[in-house]
Amino acid sequence: MVLTILDFIGVFVFSMSGLLAASNKKMDVFGGLIIAFVTALGGGTLRDILLDQPIAWIVNPWYIYLVIFGSIAALAFNKVLFKIRKALFLFDSIGIGLFMIIGLQKGLSLELPLITALIFGVITATFGGVIRDTLSNEVPLIFRKEIYATACIAGGLLFIGLKLLEVPETINLISSVVLVTTIRIVVVLKKWRLPLLNEEL
Amino acid sequence: MVLTILDFIGVFVFSMSGLLAASNKKMDVFGGLIIAFVTALGGGTLRDILLDQPIAWIVNPWYIYLVIFGSIAALAFNKVLFKIRKALFLFDSIGIGLFMIIGLQKGLSLELPLITALIFGVITATFGGVIRDTLSNEVPLIFRKEIYATACIAGGLLFIGLKLLEVPETINLISSVVLVTTIRIVVVLKKWRLPLLNEEL
Amino acid sequence: MVLTILDFIGVFVFSMSGLLAASNKKMDVFGGLIIAFVTALGGGTLRDILLDQPIAWIVNPWYIYLVIFGSIAALAFNKVLFKIRKALFLFDSIGIGLFMIIGLQKGLSLELPLITALIFGVITATFGGVIRDTLSNEVPLIFRKEIYATACIAGGLLFIGLKLLEVPETINLISSVVLVTTIRIVVVLKKWRLPLLNEEL
Repeated sequence: MVLTILDFIGVFVFSMSGLLAASNKKMDVFGGLIIAFVTALGGGTLRDILLDQPIAWIVNPWYIYLVIFGSIAALAFNKVLFKIRKALFLFDSIGIGLFMIIGLQKGLSLELPLITALIFGVITATFGGVIRDTLSNEVPLIFRKEIYATACIAGGLLFIGLKLLEVPETINLISSVVLVTTIRIVVVLKKWRLPLLNEEL
Repeated sequence: MVLTILDFIGVFVFSMSGLLAASNKKMDVFGGLIIAFVTALGGGTLRDILLDQPIAWIVNPWYIYLVIFGSIAALAFNKVLFKIRKALFLFDSIGIGLFMIIGLQKGLSLELPLITALIFGVITATFGGVIRDTLSNEVPLIFRKEIYATACIAGGLLFIGLKLLEVPETINLISSVVLVTTIRIVVVLKKWRLPLLNEEL
Repeated sequence: MVLTILDFIGVFVFSMSGLLAASNKKMDVFGGLIIAFVTALGGGTLRDILLDQPIAWIVNPWYIYLVIFGSIAALAFNKVLFKIRKALFLFDSIGIGLFMIIGLQKGLSLELPLITALIFGVITATFGGVIRDTLSNEVPLIFRKEIYATACIAGGLLFIGLKLLEVPETINLISSVVLVTTIRIVVVLKKWRLPLLNEEL
């Protein structure tokens, strides 16, 4: 129940960030709506296709309405959003942490091996952005400099560890999401990034 | 039955338009064939993956042959096609209208909510072109200036309305496809487009 | 059994070639790992999504470990790899031939029509590379100059022919993979390519 509400908040926030990303491109309103849709729901959709599970937005149209409301809100309040962009970045980071744990949980509930469940967490958290960037004709941000996949994996490992220690699920969820969010924020503030491949090679 | 024949015509015409689009890129014959395939069948394939339904071209190889024939026809008769490009544009618009109603129908027959069924209509009609443009390394045309998603939605709403009024299906189908086609043609002639996001923001 | 070992070798080699391809882009280590993953497993994954079959790397995590090991090997031994790049090209060609026959076999075992089974061979062999290039923001290589789809189809036709003649499967497999590999190598040495569409038109 708490998880569903948090999921809805994540979808709403990602829709806004998707629409704002599209507005930097020469896209029209319809293009922006599609980009908002894939940013918010693409990662979870890919996960459910791979796992042959029912797809959330097909089962429950509220996800669709949330994308539409989020897009309209981003269009209507873009000046306000610009002012509160630090708060938005915080929400976006919480959304990423949340999607990571939701995907990981789904993998664990299907009794997948740990590494596979972790991959499904990362797919849920990051592939919305990957599809958004691919459709926008860019090399996905997350392949180049955003380090949040690393933050996701750290949060996922914490979640698995606390679960093994039988920490109550709500406390575990909050701790893991806080870890993902904190790492991402620290990384962005410090401008840390992973080594580039052509530096390595 | 009528629907299947019209579907076949749509696939044939979209194959030709896919191959002609690929020929503006530095692609070889094999690349052109793949682009023709995804343009003609990509939207319906994505719809059926999402809905966990059997995929038409896997069940019925005639769809594959139609793509091959359409591609050969486009290669062989490209000078003729250039002369009749207005007729082709008409066929292409009819194909879009048809794919919209086929996708919408499929969604309705699975008892999806109206908004979800509409989305599946739009996916069927437009995602072949979106995949084509993404593979060709372009921002999809439909996100930038083609307004036919709007035409599709108008046609879909008419179809749902006439269905609620219990208008016979054939008449409903024809009316809705005619509406999509007409809107698209008027829009292209008048050079109407949706507002760009960066004009809005 | 032999097939599984060969499949593992194919995945390992494709991971290395995926990571090396990513290193020519300004990607970080995480981006390289994703590109290695999709290059090695993307074609088979798309095939199994379309056929509604269990996906190999979800059932068996060894495929995931192989991608990780292959990526680390490519990072660690890249200077050695550069020296043996002709051997790597050979392995890569064998991998393509193998993936072609694995995909074709899967299609035939599901009693699909021949042309559909051939398409699934080609998807298995080539779509990893197509997704890699699309995520790297390039027009897929195979649409522009790599002729190996043609080599794949030739090998697939040989496999079907020898199967009809009831040639034992191992001999058939080896012959078909050798044919694909040989054609690809000859084609690359001779710099043959398919005609470009804009030469045709």
